[in-house]
Amino acid sequence: MRTILLKNVKIPVGGELVEGSILIEDKVIRAVSKKTFEADEVLDGNGLLAVPGGIDVHAHVYDPDNLEHEDWRSGSLAASYGGITTLIDMPLRVFVDKTETALEKIQAARRESYINYGLTGGFLNEQNYNAIEELEKIGVKTFKVFTCRPFQTSDKGLGKIFEKAAEKNVAIIAHAEDEGLLTLLESRYRVRDDIEAYHLSRSPWAEAAAVLKLGYYSLETGARLHIAHLSSKEGVDALAFLKSKNPRVTAETCPHYLFFTREDSKAYGTYLKMAPTLKTSIDREALWNALETGLVEVYASDNAPSPRSLKEKDVWSAWGGIPNLEIMGPFLFTYGVLKGRISLQTFINVFSRNPAKLLGLYPLLGEIFVGSLADIVVLNTREPRHISSKTHHHKVDWTPWEGLSLYGHPYYLMVHGELIIEKGELVGEPGTGVYVGELGKVGMNV
Amino acid sequence: MRTILLKNVKIPVGGELVEGSILIEDKVIRAVSKKTFEADEVLDGNGLLAVPGGIDVHAHVYDPDNLEHEDWRSGSLAASYGGITTLIDMPLRVFVDKTETALEKIQAARRESYINYGLTGGFLNEQNYNAIEELEKIGVKTFKVFTCRPFQTSDKGLGKIFEKAAEKNVAIIAHAEDEGLLTLLESRYRVRDDIEAYHLSRSPWAEAAAVLKLGYYSLETGARLHIAHLSSKEGVDALAFLKSKNPRVTAETCPHYLFFTREDSKAYGTYLKMAPTLKTSIDREALWNALETGLVEVYASDNAPSPRSLKEKDVWSAWGGIPNLEIMGPFLFTYGVLKGRISLQTFINVFSRNPAKLLGLYPLLGEIFVGSLADIVVLNTREPRHISSKTHHHKVDWTPWEGLSLYGHPYYLMVHGELIIEKGELVGEPGTGVYVGELGKVGMNV
Amino acid sequence: MRTILLKNVKIPVGGELVEGSILIEDKVIRAVSKKTFEADEVLDGNGLLAVPGGIDVHAHVYDPDNLEHEDWRSGSLAASYGGITTLIDMPLRVFVDKTETALEKIQAARRESYINYGLTGGFLNEQNYNAIEELEKIGVKTFKVFTCRPFQTSDKGLGKIFEKAAEKNVAIIAHAEDEGLLTLLESRYRVRDDIEAYHLSRSPWAEAAAVLKLGYYSLETGARLHIAHLSSKEGVDALAFLKSKNPRVTAETCPHYLFFTREDSKAYGTYLKMAPTLKTSIDREALWNALETGLVEVYASDNAPSPRSLKEKDVWSAWGGIPNLEIMGPFLFTYGVLKGRISLQTFINVFSRNPAKLLGLYPLLGEIFVGSLADIVVLNTREPRHISSKTHHHKVDWTPWEGLSLYGHPYYLMVHGELIIEKGELVGEPGTGVYVGELGKVGMNV
Amino acid sequence: MRTILLKNVKIPVGGELVEGSILIEDKVIRAVSKKTFEADEVLDGNGLLAVPGGIDVHAHVYDPDNLEHEDWRSGSLAASYGGITTLIDMPLRVFVDKTETALEKIQAARRESYINYGLTGGFLNEQNYNAIEELEKIGVKTFKVFTCRPFQTSDKGLGKIFEKAAEKNVAIIAHAEDEGLLTLLESRYRVRDDIEAYHLSRSPWAEAAAVLKLGYYSLETGARLHIAHLSSKEGVDALAFLKSKNPRVTAETCPHYLFFTREDSKAYGTYLKMAPTLKTSIDREALWNALETGLVEVYASDNAPSPRSLKEKDVWSAWGGIPNLEIMGPFLFTYGVLKGRISLQTFINVFSRNPAKLLGLYPLLGEIFVGSLADIVVLNTREPRHISSKTHHHKVDWTPWEGLSLYGHPYYLMVHGELIIEKGELVGEPGTGVYVGELGKVGMNV
Ligand SMILES: [Zn+2]
Ligand SMILES: [Zn+2]
Ligand SMILES: [Zn+2]
Ligand SMILES: [Zn+2]
Ligand SMILES: [Zn+2]
Ligand SMILES: [Zn+2]
Ligand SMILES: [Zn+2]
Ligand SMILES: [Zn+2]
Repeated sequence: MRTILLKNVKIPVGGELVEGSILIEDKVIRAVSKKTFEADEVLDGNGLLAVPGGIDVHAHVYDPDNLEHEDWRSGSLAASYGGITTLIDMPLRVFVDKTETALEKIQAARRESYINYGLTGGFLNEQNYNAIEELEKIGVKTFKVFTCRPFQTSDKGLGKIFEKAAEKNVAIIAHAEDEGLLTLLESRYRVRDDIEAYHLSRSPWAEAAAVLKLGYYSLETGARLHIAHLSSKEGVDALAFLKSKNPRVTAETCPHYLFFTREDSKAYGTYLKMAPTLKTSIDREALWNALETGLVEVYASDNAPSPRSLKEKDVWSAWGGIPNLEIMGPFLFTYGVLKGRISLQTFINVFSRNPAKLLGLYPLLGEIFVGSLADIVVLNTREPRHISSKTHHHKVDWTPWEGLSLYGHPYYLMVHGELIIEKGELVGEPGTGVYVGELGKVGMNV
Repeated sequence: MRTILLKNVKIPVGGELVEGSILIEDKVIRAVSKKTFEADEVLDGNGLLAVPGGIDVHAHVYDPDNLEHEDWRSGSLAASYGGITTLIDMPLRVFVDKTETALEKIQAARRESYINYGLTGGFLNEQNYNAIEELEKIGVKTFKVFTCRPFQTSDKGLGKIFEKAAEKNVAIIAHAEDEGLLTLLESRYRVRDDIEAYHLSRSPWAEAAAVLKLGYYSLETGARLHIAHLSSKEGVDALAFLKSKNPRVTAETCPHYLFFTREDSKAYGTYLKMAPTLKTSIDREALWNALETGLVEVYASDNAPSPRSLKEKDVWSAWGGIPNLEIMGPFLFTYGVLKGRISLQTFINVFSRNPAKLLGLYPLLGEIFVGSLADIVVLNTREPRHISSKTHHHKVDWTPWEGLSLYGHPYYLMVHGELIIEKGELVGEPGTGVYVGELGKVGMNV
Repeated sequence: MRTILLKNVKIPVGGELVEGSILIEDKVIRAVSKKTFEADEVLDGNGLLAVPGGIDVHAHVYDPDNLEHEDWRSGSLAASYGGITTLIDMPLRVFVDKTETALEKIQAARRESYINYGLTGGFLNEQNYNAIEELEKIGVKTFKVFTCRPFQTSDKGLGKIFEKAAEKNVAIIAHAEDEGLLTLLESRYRVRDDIEAYHLSRSPWAEAAAVLKLGYYSLETGARLHIAHLSSKEGVDALAFLKSKNPRVTAETCPHYLFFTREDSKAYGTYLKMAPTLKTSIDREALWNALETGLVEVYASDNAPSPRSLKEKDVWSAWGGIPNLEIMGPFLFTYGVLKGRISLQTFINVFSRNPAKLLGLYPLLGEIFVGSLADIVVLNTREPRHISSKTHHHKVDWTPWEGLSLYGHPYYLMVHGELIIEKGELVGEPGTGVYVGELGKVGMNV
Repeated sequence: MRTILLKNVKIPVGGELVEGSILIEDKVIRAVSKKTFEADEVLDGNGLLAVPGGIDVHAHVYDPDNLEHEDWRSGSLAASYGGITTLIDMPLRVFVDKTETALEKIQAARRESYINYGLTGGFLNEQNYNAIEELEKIGVKTFKVFTCRPFQTSDKGLGKIFEKAAEKNVAIIAHAEDEGLLTLLESRYRVRDDIEAYHLSRSPWAEAAAVLKLGYYSLETGARLHIAHLSSKEGVDALAFLKSKNPRVTAETCPHYLFFTREDSKAYGTYLKMAPTLKTSIDREALWNALETGLVEVYASDNAPSPRSLKEKDVWSAWGGIPNLEIMGPFLFTYGVLKGRISLQTFINVFSRNPAKLLGLYPLLGEIFVGSLADIVVLNTREPRHISSKTHHHKVDWTPWEGLSLYGHPYYLMVHGELIIEKGELVGEPGTGVYVGELGKVGMNV
């Protein structure tokens, strides 16, 4: 079978960096060594850093009713430039609680996705929670719930959802904000029409309250819980408390909470509207710290761009969300590792290893190790790339990241041994990715 | 004006015990001294310990529809034997959300109560939360809410209740158990019909979840929150976390959680049914420890006896609650102070000082100090009293405390200078108590 | 006996503000009422706010070898303008571990102090810990220890000190920084000679480590522990953890940690040198929050001015400390209450009630209540006072607070009924203060 | 090259159990699959559970001066029966702070050890901390320090040790008990001569205090810290707090703390003497819970048997420690997994995965994955094995585990593809193990 040698790279091995090479055969890593090997194809890493490809467990990519926002082709391409090799689609408006809706998404990805892909089911509630049973059979391992509008489930529904999730050993991904507090706050701030009022209308305490509540449903049932898009120091503190009780809870944060604050929203207006809202610099630093201490294990995009027409409305009506896939790895590397906020180990943990564990696929994914799938990204740590909506690969023609200069973008990006990006240039094809629900068929594992 | 001298007692002063005497004039303490004074009447304390009278902020005493359970006469008399000088009635079934219902309770107490008295309003919900405004005018400072059946309020209701409570500076007393988790658990345990199944059907996690949620409503609005009848280590842990955020939260526990465990319920059957339920010895010790560290500031009875006919039903239908007033102080003194679980300072703090603070009446109540109301109990720490339903003063003819031998029962008990118990014998009269909402009229303060 | 009426003031009573008057007779408050009374002298409060006088438990006032820094006359006068009515002297260089040294300080204060006064003994170590026994007899209730240079005690010494403190029911006030970490850091930063390097040489972790260690000595022995001059968020977090275990620990913070950051030190150079060092704005806000939540119960000055000649040295040799007495109450009122960081209740708690409790003198001190000593300050909340070394009453001719404009300075200040400040002007005399160790002789209490 | 197929086993893959087979070639796992493969040798697992071999990071095995206690031959054999495939020797009395002492140990192991082996250096102090630099070169990755006698280092020494450890990226393994508190307690209990007095002479607070202190040295320097033999709930609580700050701290507990309490020591006398001491059932359950929540990541033996003559002395003079290797895996499986205290995932994490991570060798060790070293144990979960000093493989002729009946003992045990135990019988040879410091030479990795 055809072999590829990625030589002259720095490889993270057991807490250290080793200069060496990686031998790939039949989609899988066959050797990681200080030595070199003969191979059919040789890629020179120029001494750059090789890391396992990023895994984004929370990206709104393909919503059948909203394909002008993003789709598998644009999303997986932007993700590739973000150093991501596996992309898990999150429902946006269309419910993914039936096999046929899930299969439609999977089939679209099979044709269009440059990189590996998977799905989160949802939105679960008191009526449709049995979707867990149905979708788990086709490889869906994560399911979304809301504790607030627009897809809030009742507390009785939560009980049933968590019980079923425990039975099927899937993870519940939760949008965690307390609806009662949001209602209270909205009535307080709705009298204003500025973007700051919007950001104040969803408070850190609303987030913390919901995080904790969900944690107890997880404890009572034994179901795994993953907190989506943690945005505040209060959320971090709540999570820390929860984790002293509950071994089955994980959490993610997103690039916008690690960069922007409420203050910034004034300059961007509704283009920086999202939920949960932006908080303060104290929150931002608490989130960086939580990544570094391991409290927040996962870095995810919550990618959710929308056309300008949906953004240019009053603050209470405008669509929320921003395009994030393109900047994922480079942002984390530049503002995290290079600024000394997180270690390189943490970068790999939150961008790749821990998401793989969340999906039950580690170390098949998430590690550069013999036997692992050859999902590898070599980071260009020498020259920055400038981010612009003119050059990014999202469908939308705007980005709040405009003008950022980022290190750590892909020099090579490879999914199961197939090059998508080579020396910074696109060389891959749509349809290269595989469905993570079928990964057992790809490698030697299982 | 007539003066009384209580001489030859040990008095807690500034963290130490002083042997001396207390001079009383016109309902108020006029001197606390190592010296003695001349007085119209002299009471000899025989070297026993004088402490400020107990204040029970959570006792079901007088429910117009259930006067065969308890009433002001029986309740205030039992409370006197429990070392209590102020008794705050908690609604049982009849809502106290109108002035006239409140006044009916107050008028009954004026005729019948041996000791000082007050009311908690409730049960508040999304419809009647304006009762806070109405009842605060007649001196009601505490209001009850439920996060679960049978008087659950919606989350939207919680928001409105807490906003109004903040505006009027009253405290919300909460029955804190998460209804969603209770529903989940009940469906799990309802297949059984033993008393242990009942106790398992309301879990520590349900308590902790509700405590935390309420804490964030308090933070968001600034309203004071008092957690009723904390029953578990998980609840204590949640409270500790909450208090690191929120200065406006207090909590109480009750004698049954400090003595009985789920195991014990097997011997007593539905006579030991109550909500929240009994937990384990680990929970019990955590609660004692929380009293000592000050995490749980208040010791309250949740007195709720009911006739035998209502107890002798299947575990799911039987009435909950037990008679506690009679054993309050003596139990805490014997199983707390004498067993070395809490200090004497803690005894006074949780039984008297802190409840007075909760009511906004400290140091007029809750302290033996010049200017304080002469609500004093001299504890018989030399001879035990045997508890029995044959001799207790509750209306019901049963008690789970049957056979206990307790130290620290009243040798003297005095409300605003009037003796109710003298040398262990009843000498007081019904109607002696005053309404705490009118205390400004009694002393020199305000 | 001569009576004074302070009328037309707002008085904090049981969590609310009452407009009324205070009647004083024989050093003690005789009535607090909405009514007025006849009196020999009537003071009109003009509707201003009356609060119990401040109690500063940590001020370097009178060191026999360093009287050019501060003395009882200058210190007590500056303190009066700071709204303080009781001042506890802390050793500076001369050890206070013998009765005669203590008596010399007391006698000097008796002649010179405008306000009430007391002493902290120290510095205790493995040799002199029996000083607790000796000094407690003359009313010393607080003793200083260091976990670091220049007065570090050994761990074995700590054990003996805490055992003795528990036996005598006195409080250990600790300078809490871990010497091992300080040594490590000093070797890291001593290569630099800028003031920021000095501030970095004593880290938040050094503080947190020592706080926790001391907390376990307190737990093991039962001795009361008071953490001096807490300066960091890490210290606050450590304290929060400790308090979930230990009911006998309290802490103080100081105005400089609530205002200045490491950044500011660049402008002031060694004039802003002190230990513990200044930290960041995150630390500062954590300390404000800790006052509001009650985690840090006490606000103290750590007043420690020194002549310019001792300040104008290289950063490693310059003397540490700043003059704080003059700004104490007004700073806390202006930057705390008026800026909305703390409530008025918190202001009174940390400035007066809680220090009184620490000294075992509450509610004789620390409350406006019948029977309490008439130590009262009426705050001028209408016109600001400008702080300047030209007008302040410290001995030194400099202050880092130069130019601050503060509300809440004394309109009246009264110690046990004697006016020290009247309508903002000094009217009192040196020698008016009484020794808190003899307070039982003053009032009716004890 | 010769291949082995281990077929018909249950294999933990990505959070689930898969029935399948494991193909081994050249010391390394080549396939993990539901399929079977052809192979030179086929082992039938009979449907039993295959897990990665145990890694014991804390065992006193080979002390040159005390070879009558244990040695590599007895220790590695007992460990094999305990399901362990890698054994890290901990210094007992002889310091391992020179290359030659380390090499002596390694050479003895090379001749005598049935299983893989490694070393911890120590005991470090202010003088010899540079041993880190020397020993790291020959593959030593862990170093022992004491905060108490008999090998206590000064605080200044701690600073230097942690700085050096950070520089070399090695882990500090700490015996964490505060010497000052131990001294205090010993003086309190030394008047007694019963074994319970001994166990009381080292308190939970002494442990917690040292854990926290070490944690701040780790934070200040960035060095990795591993807490040895955690024994108490207070220690667990301290660790939980620490981990909210410090990502570089891990901890272990040992079988005796998970089984025995202070009460039990009365029956066994000095045979159950060890340090830290046994605590209570509340501590025991807190430790089980900490394993399950992941707070305590590692399960280690602290194996430290000694001849009867050293045990049969007065409680203060007797040698501490017990033989644990033989029962390691089976005890954890029986009292943890089978009793429902921990999940099977937790069993694998704490016994194998996490120790491998601590040593920087995961997933080369600690996982059943393609590319991992073929260190595998198939657990006999069907028939119990009876533990007795008559049949165990330790040198000593006693064990406190006498009479225990344990499931989960090895049916097969294999180190890098070499069978040591086959169908429960010893088939391996001394000298089979390899030195973990040279593992790069064995597999394909690095
Ligand atoms: Zn969301
Ligand atoms: Zn989303
Ligand atoms: Zn209730
Ligand atoms: Zn009740
Ligand atoms: Zn100091
Ligand atoms: Zn000082
Ligand atoms: Zn040890
Ligand atoms: Zn050991």
